[in-house]
Amino acid sequence: MKKSWMLLHCSLATIAALALLTSPYPAGAAGQKGEEKRPVIKEDGVESKNEVWGKHYPRQYASWKETGKSEKIDDMLKKKPQLPILWAGYPFSKDYNAPRGHFYAVQDVVNTLRTGAPVSPITGPLPTACWSCKSPDVPRLMKEVGEKEYFTGKWAKYGSEVVNPIGCADCHDSKTGDLALSRPYLKRGLAASGVDVAKVSKSDMRSLVCAQCHVEYYFKKTEETDAKGGKKATMTVTFPWDKGFKGEDVEAYYDAMNFSDWTHAISKAPMLKAQHPDYELFVSGTHGRRGVSCADCHMPSRTEGGVTFTDHHIASPLDNIANTCLNCHDQSEEEFRSHLAVKLERKEELMELAMNGLARAHLEAGKAWEAGATEEEMKDILQDIRHGQWRWDYSIAGHGSYFHNPEETLRLIAQANDLAQQARVKLAAVLARHGVIGYQVPDFSTKEKAQALAGIDMAKEVSEKLAFKAALVQEWNKEAVAKGRLNMESRQGMSDRSSYSK
Amino acid sequence: MKKSWMLLHCSLATIAALALLTSPYPAGAAGQKGEEKRPVIKEDGVESKNEVWGKHYPRQYASWKETGKSEKIDDMLKKKPQLPILWAGYPFSKDYNAPRGHFYAVQDVVNTLRTGAPVSPITGPLPTACWSCKSPDVPRLMKEVGEKEYFTGKWAKYGSEVVNPIGCADCHDSKTGDLALSRPYLKRGLAASGVDVAKVSKSDMRSLVCAQCHVEYYFKKTEETDAKGGKKATMTVTFPWDKGFKGEDVEAYYDAMNFSDWTHAISKAPMLKAQHPDYELFVSGTHGRRGVSCADCHMPSRTEGGVTFTDHHIASPLDNIANTCLNCHDQSEEEFRSHLAVKLERKEELMELAMNGLARAHLEAGKAWEAGATEEEMKDILQDIRHGQWRWDYSIAGHGSYFHNPEETLRLIAQANDLAQQARVKLAAVLARHGVIGYQVPDFSTKEKAQALAGIDMAKEVSEKLAFKAALVQEWNKEAVAKGRLNMESRQGMSDRSSYSK
Repeated sequence: MKKSWMLLHCSLATIAALALLTSPYPAGAAGQKGEEKRPVIKEDGVESKNEVWGKHYPRQYASWKETGKSEKIDDMLKKKPQLPILWAGYPFSKDYNAPRGHFYAVQDVVNTLRTGAPVSPITGPLPTACWSCKSPDVPRLMKEVGEKEYFTGKWAKYGSEVVNPIGCADCHDSKTGDLALSRPYLKRGLAASGVDVAKVSKSDMRSLVCAQCHVEYYFKKTEETDAKGGKKATMTVTFPWDKGFKGEDVEAYYDAMNFSDWTHAISKAPMLKAQHPDYELFVSGTHGRRGVSCADCHMPSRTEGGVTFTDHHIASPLDNIANTCLNCHDQSEEEFRSHLAVKLERKEELMELAMNGLARAHLEAGKAWEAGATEEEMKDILQDIRHGQWRWDYSIAGHGSYFHNPEETLRLIAQANDLAQQARVKLAAVLARHGVIGYQVPDFSTKEKAQALAGIDMAKEVSEKLAFKAALVQEWNKEAVAKGRLNMESRQGMSDRSSYSK
Repeated sequence: MKKSWMLLHCSLATIAALALLTSPYPAGAAGQKGEEKRPVIKEDGVESKNEVWGKHYPRQYASWKETGKSEKIDDMLKKKPQLPILWAGYPFSKDYNAPRGHFYAVQDVVNTLRTGAPVSPITGPLPTACWSCKSPDVPRLMKEVGEKEYFTGKWAKYGSEVVNPIGCADCHDSKTGDLALSRPYLKRGLAASGVDVAKVSKSDMRSLVCAQCHVEYYFKKTEETDAKGGKKATMTVTFPWDKGFKGEDVEAYYDAMNFSDWTHAISKAPMLKAQHPDYELFVSGTHGRRGVSCADCHMPSRTEGGVTFTDHHIASPLDNIANTCLNCHDQSEEEFRSHLAVKLERKEELMELAMNGLARAHLEAGKAWEAGATEEEMKDILQDIRHGQWRWDYSIAGHGSYFHNPEETLRLIAQANDLAQQARVKLAAVLARHGVIGYQVPDFSTKEKAQALAGIDMAKEVSEKLAFKAALVQEWNKEAVAKGRLNMESRQGMSDRSSYSK
């Protein structure tokens, strides 16, 4: 980790120049130099309402609102029907869509079947931690109630508190306007990996604000007994960075603490779910190594009416190649795209192999249990499945790993498939020992078939979710408006979509 | 293929400049511009003796002689004991060393156990085609006896003819000194892949002269009955480029003609052996796509005593990073090396997985035959093994594919391992059907153990080879000297080494 960190500092001259062009100074504030001239958005605490910032930074705000253009719901379980098998027993098997813009962060976490259908602040499957990356209301809340209280209780506890989608105060200090780390868990993660947070440069901040969320993390459970003998548990967002950023480093971290996110519903393997380790894979890719920051490509400078400002319409640079990639890459857009297409194709190809291998391994393990396999026979196999699926997930769960670090992505997917296939070779022997020879797994070629195999009752999930949205969510919004935390007009243009909506 | 060919033309300006610096004009001929001033080495035919060229091009010749510095024999079968299993039944399982410099080309092909121990011009396992890439005596011979005659008969037929190692006339025209394609099979390969050889640019020639040998090829057998009813067979070097350069394209070419190099001694799979498809993988890698030629990196310009000439000490640019890679890559040598080390590590890691998977698949297939498996049960499995091993071989048999095209290399190795493991899953079921459950393959962790499993009698191979070297090879050299084809002093400094020498 220390090494890759060092490399982050050796910025190219061109990139440094670019960084100057895309400074966070307010648009229209030409001539106003120095931090003291920036408007104070809020003297104390965190201003979580993005539209309040928008009054002072109209161009940045308008460009941020463009992240709302990603209206389409792209149902990944439909596209890749192996997924419900891979995630059987875990909420992702119910609902998983391609990422949309920051504007939809709160809507998507409320709408997804993964968060279930709570009926009160203390019901529902997930902890408060599930809000952590969705909103600037999270740092606001942490300041108001303390981090420990924030990480205590169920997700529904904060339905009326976390109402503004990922925006200004996630990355900027409300008083100074400076880039700032609003999430304490990133600071702890950096410290654990040997980085002195106090020595982080401004250029590094252009990546680190993103690394608050676009990383791998887990919910660390801590139980406590208070003075009166009452038990209390916190589930704290924690970055598993102590051993390094490689897929195997993080795997070793989780193995050492015997951690698993869930027990697989079919294979009974002790599973890990990767989040979106964009930053970890980016750092050791070519761009990361040469000192390019996230913002250099995802937030290029933009000029309107003679004013140059940082584009806050954060999306794939591939939607804007001429103003991003081609600043450095001396190629035609057509040539550049054709080059990238091959990279994506390679990743997709190996990903299909690994997903098929893993899905079959789960189903064959399920059959082995059914046939009477023993814990002893299965132990080693389940560990192969755990590690295989972890490496697959770690390599592809990020938004653009195939681009940020194509070689490392291919290496990890190949490792994943190797482990899946090794498990399958062993399973064939276990199955044979229990009288099952040449077992063919059932058809999982559609989302519906795969979800049925994973034991999901989608009709029930959806009807409960719709009831939750018609009742509790309405109360949340009402309360949020009443308490001055939410302006409903800030949601203008936000159509209510989900994978299950008509 | 056409597309990648087009890309070869879009040279970078810097590369074009470099090309000028490294022109083939004789050193010391400053002021002598234009082709008419170059010395005529031979008016008619091919001058295969490198030292004759050396009189006119002393600096290029001296640098070429430096390829003799790679004295060390690096026994790959020792380093990777999976190899004798993978190649069981094929000469490579007896002897396979890391490549040495051009200076050793003839010595190595004479010394390798692969060429066996002929006792006369018509004995020994291999055809004349095995000389094809080893010497400028090959184009000389082709001119003298015709291509058809050249490709007829046993390798030993030309022991006294092919005596000068890869050198000047392999790439240069003896009369004009120009870069020239001395091998007709490359021209046919290019034509088959849709390239008009007449339109090849000078810059392209800086890669194509290398592509005469650093490619995939096979020996195409053609049988003929002459007027008197006698049968004659030619084995002609042929490039399988009709369907494209991707591993799968070449595989499809061989599949379509039902071609195999040999039947595997253990698994009975119909196998393919890749040669060294450097060019094919290079073309679609970053350097190839951006118009960099082989010579740009492998033959940089070199200055001695104020004279700049093309360095003919062809080796890995990594031995000479400051004068090659860093011409374009704005990095420190240390940083550059650390970046490359990771690339190599990734390739090695996936290669080990694939080699272990393939070796096990062969051994498990052998066990399945032993247990009574039928042709019908094995057909599909043997095809998986054939394709898996082909993709592994195609991706790593080249001298620097991990560098020329790292992503494609990783993709292919991952494909190879997937096929190997799929074969193993199927084999576990076949074995179980024949009463063998949980079969553990025998130990192949050393060259000796692996060669024993492959059924090789190394003592016999070596003693026959030594006898061949003491007898026939001495006659060859004597005759070559007597006929004026070889100057023994040209071999000065050439120590006689092999994997089996003390």
